[in-house]
Amino acid sequence: MTDLITPVILSGGSGTRLWPVSTDERPKQFLNLNGPLSMFQLTLERCLEPKLFNPPIIVGSTKHAALAEKQLEETGITAAAHILEPCARNTAPAIALAALACENPQDLMLVMPSDHIIKNVSAFQKAVRQSLPLAKARWLVTFGITPNKPETGYGYIQQGDNIVGSVDSFAAKRFVEKPNMENAEKMLAEGGHYWNAGIFLFRADTFLSVLGEQAPEMLEAAQKAMDGAHRDGTQVKPDEPSFASAPSDSIDYAVMEKAEKVAVTPVDPGWSDVGSWDSLYEISSADDQSNVVTGTVTMIESSNNLVHADGMEISTYGIENLIIVASQNKVMVMPRSESQNVRKIVMEKNKDN
Amino acid sequence: MTDLITPVILSGGSGTRLWPVSTDERPKQFLNLNGPLSMFQLTLERCLEPKLFNPPIIVGSTKHAALAEKQLEETGITAAAHILEPCARNTAPAIALAALACENPQDLMLVMPSDHIIKNVSAFQKAVRQSLPLAKARWLVTFGITPNKPETGYGYIQQGDNIVGSVDSFAAKRFVEKPNMENAEKMLAEGGHYWNAGIFLFRADTFLSVLGEQAPEMLEAAQKAMDGAHRDGTQVKPDEPSFASAPSDSIDYAVMEKAEKVAVTPVDPGWSDVGSWDSLYEISSADDQSNVVTGTVTMIESSNNLVHADGMEISTYGIENLIIVASQNKVMVMPRSESQNVRKIVMEKNKDN
Repeated sequence: MTDLITPVILSGGSGTRLWPVSTDERPKQFLNLNGPLSMFQLTLERCLEPKLFNPPIIVGSTKHAALAEKQLEETGITAAAHILEPCARNTAPAIALAALACENPQDLMLVMPSDHIIKNVSAFQKAVRQSLPLAKARWLVTFGITPNKPETGYGYIQQGDNIVGSVDSFAAKRFVEKPNMENAEKMLAEGGHYWNAGIFLFRADTFLSVLGEQAPEMLEAAQKAMDGAHRDGTQVKPDEPSFASAPSDSIDYAVMEKAEKVAVTPVDPGWSDVGSWDSLYEISSADDQSNVVTGTVTMIESSNNLVHADGMEISTYGIENLIIVASQNKVMVMPRSESQNVRKIVMEKNKDN
Repeated sequence: MTDLITPVILSGGSGTRLWPVSTDERPKQFLNLNGPLSMFQLTLERCLEPKLFNPPIIVGSTKHAALAEKQLEETGITAAAHILEPCARNTAPAIALAALACENPQDLMLVMPSDHIIKNVSAFQKAVRQSLPLAKARWLVTFGITPNKPETGYGYIQQGDNIVGSVDSFAAKRFVEKPNMENAEKMLAEGGHYWNAGIFLFRADTFLSVLGEQAPEMLEAAQKAMDGAHRDGTQVKPDEPSFASAPSDSIDYAVMEKAEKVAVTPVDPGWSDVGSWDSLYEISSADDQSNVVTGTVTMIESSNNLVHADGMEISTYGIENLIIVASQNKVMVMPRSESQNVRKIVMEKNKDN
């Protein structure tokens, strides 16, 4: 049994929370909104430490296979496997595919979404390292992000007792779905509650065994899909009818909330899910007028704005606290405080079409 | 001597107050911001009443000759002459060219900028009709727009005594340059002050004779330019070196402020010089949410905005009192109250180039 970890990078998500830049054709994880690398590439590079990590397993959508391969190639990283989901079945079946693709049942998997930003990679790696003994001892380890505000957009994990012998890891006492503001404020004040970032560390066999207990039909579908998979180099195309028969469910619902040995390792690595334009503003470097600017932008008497000009020129005078995004012939303008309502625009526009 | 009036349409202006839609290549008068017709075309159609008007004389820039001809053709109107200024010399020399192009010295000229909007054409034509006897009697008639606010962006004309025998026309007592707010408020409160809209009615010989007194070198330059003009159909290309030697001055400075028999006919024809995006908002029809919208625009929870989408799609959520203009790969965003500051953006961008 090796101590090296296999990163499992989930890149099958679509989403329009950063519309009009993110689209179904080019979802958020493949955008480079915060520097030269896309969030997918940043996730790959987060696991480059050879004393800690094996080559990664990527699980993504067939639709974005070429885009993912191109971005992978740009990093110079060779994946152990690039699993192309024939259809979207949420995270639990996707992780099952990756677990079944591991060389050995005891392989350690670090499951990560590909569309998050982690600024302090060494803090993150340190938390992973300190959780290794737990994972090897068949715990399902979650990483809990220390909250800095009463966020209602994330699920929470409440810590229980300190796990004996661990360095600052706790038994997970309770998973809390996205709370209302009152409950979010209560958890923040109380302490011991962390944001569920969807990052997990466990042995492949631990995960598969709990999945077999909690969702046997999902495990069976994933196994059949991998047994019938078509392989081409590192690309793995699971059998479509088998995978399509898997229930669609998240790892949180299907496994974590029901399992017994679930741990939470608190960490504060400068994490963001970049779930809105305003959250991009918050994690980005602002200029002297507190504007976060990308592209050809002229701003006069304007402050505290996020302005993203993608192939167009944006000019402003006398504006504050706005988000202005121009991309692919589309322009979006809204107050920063309203950026969660991008989806309402997308819905309205889809209604028109 | 005929009673018919020759409209003289000044279309040589450039300007960037409606940037990024208006540019040097396509100045404001050739834009259709308020309906299917451009302001140039609306000006032409304002003088279609055959019992009142002769075919028009157009004075414009060589640079925009093809654009003007195309828009002229679309209206089906044939110009008496289309004079192409070889260089810009402000309004007084331009009007001199038109006066010299009139068939007869006594011809009546109605001089009009081509980039204004007049909603109530019959009120305007009525004011023109009632001023005819004055013009025939060698008055230089100005039309004074009844002010509805203490505007600091226009010059004013103060009325003097009622001209005996006229219908509501007055001797012009004083021309006031663009005032500060205090003086603008004073004039509004006092009454008897009107906005100078740059619209004039006079006989060609009256104008040329006053010009000969007040600015003889300008008259001489215009005469030489027309004597050496190249003619091609209705197009008249004045001799460039001669015209270039004319001093550059406005009709207000060169003629009106110095002449003796200057009249003002007050009129309230729903006039706007469309001198800013906000003034376009004010004269346009708004929707239920008080938004003025052009093009493909999706607005949610947004009110009191001007949104102009020219070839792009604009979407907004939760914004108020903004101007958003997208045209030719450029996007501009500012509060409606700041729309006079477009020029600062244009200056800043020119500095970059």
